[in-house]
Amino acid sequence: MSTTISAYAVHEPGGRLEPYQLDLGPLGSTEVEVDVINCGICYSDVSMIDNDWGFSPYPMVPGHEIIGTIREVGDRVDHLSVGDTVGIGWHASYCMSCRQCMAGDHNMCANAQSTFIGRPGGYADIVRADAAAAFKLPDGVDPATAGPLMCGGITVFTPLSQLNISPTASVGVIGIGGLGHLAIKFAKAWGCEVTAFTSTASKEQEALELGAHRALNSRDAQAIADAADQFDLLISTVNVPLDWDAYLGTLKRRGRLHVLGAVPEPLSFPMQSLMMTQRSVSSSPAGRPSDIAAMLEFAGRHNIRPVTETFPFEEVNEAVDHLKQGNARYRVVLER
Amino acid sequence: MSTTISAYAVHEPGGRLEPYQLDLGPLGSTEVEVDVINCGICYSDVSMIDNDWGFSPYPMVPGHEIIGTIREVGDRVDHLSVGDTVGIGWHASYCMSCRQCMAGDHNMCANAQSTFIGRPGGYADIVRADAAAAFKLPDGVDPATAGPLMCGGITVFTPLSQLNISPTASVGVIGIGGLGHLAIKFAKAWGCEVTAFTSTASKEQEALELGAHRALNSRDAQAIADAADQFDLLISTVNVPLDWDAYLGTLKRRGRLHVLGAVPEPLSFPMQSLMMTQRSVSSSPAGRPSDIAAMLEFAGRHNIRPVTETFPFEEVNEAVDHLKQGNARYRVVLER
Repeated sequence: MSTTISAYAVHEPGGRLEPYQLDLGPLGSTEVEVDVINCGICYSDVSMIDNDWGFSPYPMVPGHEIIGTIREVGDRVDHLSVGDTVGIGWHASYCMSCRQCMAGDHNMCANAQSTFIGRPGGYADIVRADAAAAFKLPDGVDPATAGPLMCGGITVFTPLSQLNISPTASVGVIGIGGLGHLAIKFAKAWGCEVTAFTSTASKEQEALELGAHRALNSRDAQAIADAADQFDLLISTVNVPLDWDAYLGTLKRRGRLHVLGAVPEPLSFPMQSLMMTQRSVSSSPAGRPSDIAAMLEFAGRHNIRPVTETFPFEEVNEAVDHLKQGNARYRVVLER
Repeated sequence: MSTTISAYAVHEPGGRLEPYQLDLGPLGSTEVEVDVINCGICYSDVSMIDNDWGFSPYPMVPGHEIIGTIREVGDRVDHLSVGDTVGIGWHASYCMSCRQCMAGDHNMCANAQSTFIGRPGGYADIVRADAAAAFKLPDGVDPATAGPLMCGGITVFTPLSQLNISPTASVGVIGIGGLGHLAIKFAKAWGCEVTAFTSTASKEQEALELGAHRALNSRDAQAIADAADQFDLLISTVNVPLDWDAYLGTLKRRGRLHVLGAVPEPLSFPMQSLMMTQRSVSSSPAGRPSDIAAMLEFAGRHNIRPVTETFPFEEVNEAVDHLKQGNARYRVVLER
C-alpha cells in the first residue's frame, strides 16, 4: 500500500516553501508512518532552506521536530503500535549494525539518515521514520509543545547527560533562544546553579523567569571578567563568534566550554587558557536514542515544556521569516 | 641552622648560567632539604631562561626535574626521613588548604609555588621543597634516569590518568622528543595501541624501538588524512602550530585532542569538527600529587625509564644549548 503526502517543499536555495505532493511508496518493514500533529522549526531548517551548509538537496521538505500519531507500522515493528503518540527528531533511521549503533551512539552512525535530507520531513501531513527513531511520548509530556524537545531539547540535554554533569555544578548558558531557553530549564531541573548570558536586555528578566538564578549581559566585557572561575560547564548556543578566551576565563578548574551553536568561523583561543586549569572545549550532535528517551522522561517528570509560538502549517513561510528575524520567543511550532 | 647552596643562576633574559651562592635561611617546619643527585632540563627551563613567557625573575636558578637524597627534614615532617631518595617536579609547595588542594588538585592551587620561580631550583647542590611536593622513589625506579619523570613524565601520564583512558584505546603521540618519547612508553605500558607522529625521518624507527606500534610522518598531509577516525586520544607535545583540524579528523567519535606543547599561537579549528563526532580539545598542567605517586609506581612496575643524555653540572650552558638546538635524545640530565 502506498501513501501520498501533502507537504511544503523548497525548490531552490532561499526559496519559499510551496505545497508539494509526494507518493512515499510501500512502507518499510521497520518503519512507522505518522500523522503529523505539529512540527517545530529549528534554525537548522532555515540553514538548510538557504543552503548555508552547501549540501541541501532540492526539492526539500524540511522539519525534524515532529510530534504525531502512528497510523501504520511495518511488519517487523514490535514496540510501537497504531495510535501511539511519538516524537521524531534529527534522525529518521540508523544503520543499526555499525560500531556506533552497537554502542548506543546511533546518532554518530555514518549511515544515519536525517529526517528531511534525502527524504521528506515534518512540514507535511504524514511522515515516516524507522521505529528505532520514533519515541513514544511518556506521561507528563504535552504533545502540543513537545516538538522542540526532539531536536533543541535533546541537543542541550546531551552535554548534561554525556558529560556526567553533577547537580552540584554551576552551569552558564550563552544565548537565550530556542536552544538556550531549554538549556536553562534542563540545567535548573538537573539541580544545577544556572547563569544566563544574553545580549538582549529584555531577555535578562525572561531568563530569570525561565529558571536561571542570575542573568549577565554577554556584551559586557567587565561582567564576563568578573565571572572568572565560576562555571563547571558553559553551554554556548549562539551561532556568532564570541571572545572564546574571555568565556574560558569564566570556567573553574576542570571546567568545560561546550559549543552547540553552529558558528561558521573557527573557534580560536590560546592553549594556555586550557592548560593550567585542565579545561576543555567540546561539542556534540543531537543525542543518542537512549538519551532521547531519558530526556523525554526527565522532561515529563520535571514538567519541562518548550516555550512556543504557533503558526498554522499554511503560514510556514511567515513562521520561517519570524524565526529568521530573531523574533521567536522561543521556539516556533507549525500545527494543524 | 642555615644552609648555603652552590647553584647556577641566570641574571638576564637569555643569559648564560653562572655559579651562584645563596644562603637559604632556616629550614621550614614542613620542608625537606635535599642533596641534589641530578636534575633534568625541561624545555620550560629554557623558556624561562629566555623570558619567553614574560614573568621570569632574575637572578633565577632553574631546574624542576630533581632527584636527590634528603639531608634534613623540618620538625613537622613525618612521612619522609633523612636518607630517603626523592623526586621533586614543577611544584615545591602547595597552600594545602584551598578547594583545589583539598580536592587533591594541588597542582591547580592558585598559591602553589614553582620549584624555581621565586626560589632556587635544581641547578644546584642542594634544594628545598615542602614534604608534600617531594616523592619518595619506589622500587624499580632508577634514580639515575628518574629526573625527567618528575615533569615530562607526569605531564604525559596525566591525560592517561585524568581522562580515564582505557587500555583498549588507540593513542597517537605528536612529536617525539622529551615529552613524546615518554608518552609512547607510558601509553604502551598502559596497554594502548600507540602511533607516533614525527617530522624527523630518523625518529620514525626510534619511535618503534620506544614501543610505538607504528610511526607516521607528521608533515605528510596524505598520511594524516589516511589516518581518519583512528584515535581515541591524541597527545600533542610540539610547541609549533599544527593543522589542528586535520589532526581532529584522525580522532574517532568521542575522541580527544590533548595539547601539552606550549604553542604560542592560538589553537583554531571549526566547531563542526567537534560537533558531529562529539570530540573535544583539552590540556592539563603537570600532575596532581596522587598522580605523581601513581606514575612513579607505574614506571617502576613497567620499567619505564626516560632516555637521557647526561652532562656534568659544570657544563650546564652546553647542556642547555644542546637542548635548544633540538639535538637532545631525548631528555638532558645534569649530574654530579
